Amino acid sequence: MSANENIEQGLGFIPKFDDKGLITAIAQDADSGQILMVAYMNAEALALTIETGNATYFSRSRKKLWKKGEQSGHTQKVQQILTDCDQDCLILKVKTDQGQCHVGYNSCFYRKLSKNTKDTLEFVAEKVYDPKQAYGK
Amino acid sequence: MSANENIEQGLGFIPKFDDKGLITAIAQDADSGQILMVAYMNAEALALTIETGNATYFSRSRKKLWKKGEQSGHTQKVQQILTDCDQDCLILKVKTDQGQCHVGYNSCFYRKLSKNTKDTLEFVAEKVYDPKQAYGK
Repeated sequence: MSANENIEQGLGFIPKFDDKGLITAIAQDADSGQILMVAYMNAEALALTIETGNATYFSRSRKKLWKKGEQSGHTQKVQQILTDCDQDCLILKVKTDQGQCHVGYNSCFYRKLSKNTKDTLEFVAEKVYDPKQAYGK
Repeated sequence: MSANENIEQGLGFIPKFDDKGLITAIAQDADSGQILMVAYMNAEALALTIETGNATYFSRSRKKLWKKGEQSGHTQKVQQILTDCDQDCLILKVKTDQGQCHVGYNSCFYRKLSKNTKDTLEFVAEKVYDPKQAYGK
């Protein structure tokens, strides 16, 4: 197999981190299929996620490891990790028991683009918890 | 509202492109919820997607606009566009009628990390078309 074939069709997990050392990770609800959030992992975050079964990311704003739920308690138990063809993106199939978005929604994707507009959103979800309580703000 | 509140809780669609002028876009099957692929859009690709209803990306490898299916015929009809809290990631809910991954699978995510390993994949899907035929290689 060529190097490319090996990445695309082989059985070796060879995650491709970008020029900042990060890989995109999508957290998807293992039961409903709802996409909950998108975040980034460095090699250490990925290793910790695999080792502990708790989703751990790298916060680009805080520039440090971020165990999901460390502040809010809203953790993600990882059931399965999938990789895509060129291994530069991961899906984490996760079990959760509380809203996953820091704004208070179950998913970060709580707004859609309104039909026949290019700049107007509408809400598609209701808040499921109070972030002020969860984050103690 | 503060600028941040406006982005997170407002009704204005203000997509945040990264330092390369790109935003991450996840194509998700509108019916099954399966995540099909992850790609990137520049402002022009996003505008074309909204305008035409056909998913159009920016190919990072070819450095040009890429109307999904332009070579393979395996297009994506966009039913809905969702944005996340900080508006730096999009979900396209799409209708498709053919496999979406250039390797021949319905989804690019056709392999999972094997249980209790950190470096070994296993296949979770079967090919649904012959890429040699679709791409004329």
